[in-house]
Amino acid sequence: MTMSTEVGQTASSTTDSRRRILDAAVACFARSGFHGTSMQEICQEARMSPGGLYRHFTSKDAIIEAIAAEERERNARYLGAVQAESDHLQALFDGGFAFLKDMAGSRDAALCAEVCAEAQRNPRIREIFEVNHRQARDSLTRAITAAQAAGEVDGTLDPHVVVKVLMAIADGLIVRPSFDSEMSVERIEPGLRALIHRMLRPQSETSTPPREHTP
Amino acid sequence: MTMSTEVGQTASSTTDSRRRILDAAVACFARSGFHGTSMQEICQEARMSPGGLYRHFTSKDAIIEAIAAEERERNARYLGAVQAESDHLQALFDGGFAFLKDMAGSRDAALCAEVCAEAQRNPRIREIFEVNHRQARDSLTRAITAAQAAGEVDGTLDPHVVVKVLMAIADGLIVRPSFDSEMSVERIEPGLRALIHRMLRPQSETSTPPREHTP
Repeated sequence: MTMSTEVGQTASSTTDSRRRILDAAVACFARSGFHGTSMQEICQEARMSPGGLYRHFTSKDAIIEAIAAEERERNARYLGAVQAESDHLQALFDGGFAFLKDMAGSRDAALCAEVCAEAQRNPRIREIFEVNHRQARDSLTRAITAAQAAGEVDGTLDPHVVVKVLMAIADGLIVRPSFDSEMSVERIEPGLRALIHRMLRPQSETSTPPREHTP
Repeated sequence: MTMSTEVGQTASSTTDSRRRILDAAVACFARSGFHGTSMQEICQEARMSPGGLYRHFTSKDAIIEAIAAEERERNARYLGAVQAESDHLQALFDGGFAFLKDMAGSRDAALCAEVCAEAQRNPRIREIFEVNHRQARDSLTRAITAAQAAGEVDGTLDPHVVVKVLMAIADGLIVRPSFDSEMSVERIEPGLRALIHRMLRPQSETSTPPREHTP
């Protein structure tokens, strides 16, 4: 009995310490970049001894990999919502805008810009986040292909180019939030939905875009 | 005679030194970020003494401002090409793709990602590059408005949202080149032109997008 309680407490305290380290690391990376952050600074931010930190992560790369794994889990939730049995375009819009609104202006958005910058100079960072990029790309490609099969998206469009452009729009809106702050995602949502709908719908169709989601 | 030659040489050598410092700084910033680069590293990269460097720039911020000013001059060339008396959409496409192709994968693209990351944590960097952002935004808005007046772009679209989306596409393609390298700007150009054309053209029109520029 005592034994099992102790095990329970230890597991929970391990989870807490991990969480504290990862939160501290994200705060440091957002402030100083991957390159400019030392393990010592992460210890200080997490109010933890180096021994305590190294018990969980043996290197900065190991911390970055854990952060990328969390990003992958979060993305999987949005990408799951995008896959639908019917109303494919509606699901794509709802999942996409939920993601955009959660990301824009958040600490994760600052981290996204940092990933883009660092991936261009550090092959290890590129490799770690490449997996996440492919996950999003492949999942969105499946959604677009399904929408084409259902006649909701123009079948003559190359789904790979469509996904590349949709991801570029999301990346652009996420990484450059510090400029043009009055043009928030919320503010441009109706216009952006209409533009993407014009881009994707079959040529003959002139209907209105999928409605905005009212939870 | 001697005097004027000396003045000439001095002016030219001043220009050369400035150029050497700015090139060295861009290389350092692309490699280590704004935050992670010291004046000493820029001296080393430029093979110049601190005294030589400080004669031209008294701070890292002054160097970053000079780089932003150069970016502004370069952007002005592309943005000038986008303003047209007629065939507004053709000019927009040609200017836009010339810019994208010059940027994508270049050292300036790495710097663009760095600017986006650093602007989120450093108000001074945001302020410096905000001017460039507005220059591009306002110039593109004029071009879209002119294209709407000429009936080439749907007059019911909000030009501010259109420009926001076009700039997001460009930002997204520029800052994330390290992933999906097989989907280069050259590769997706025909598809991207078609998608943007579908997005912008008047609803009644089903014509083909502006042709690709063949110099």
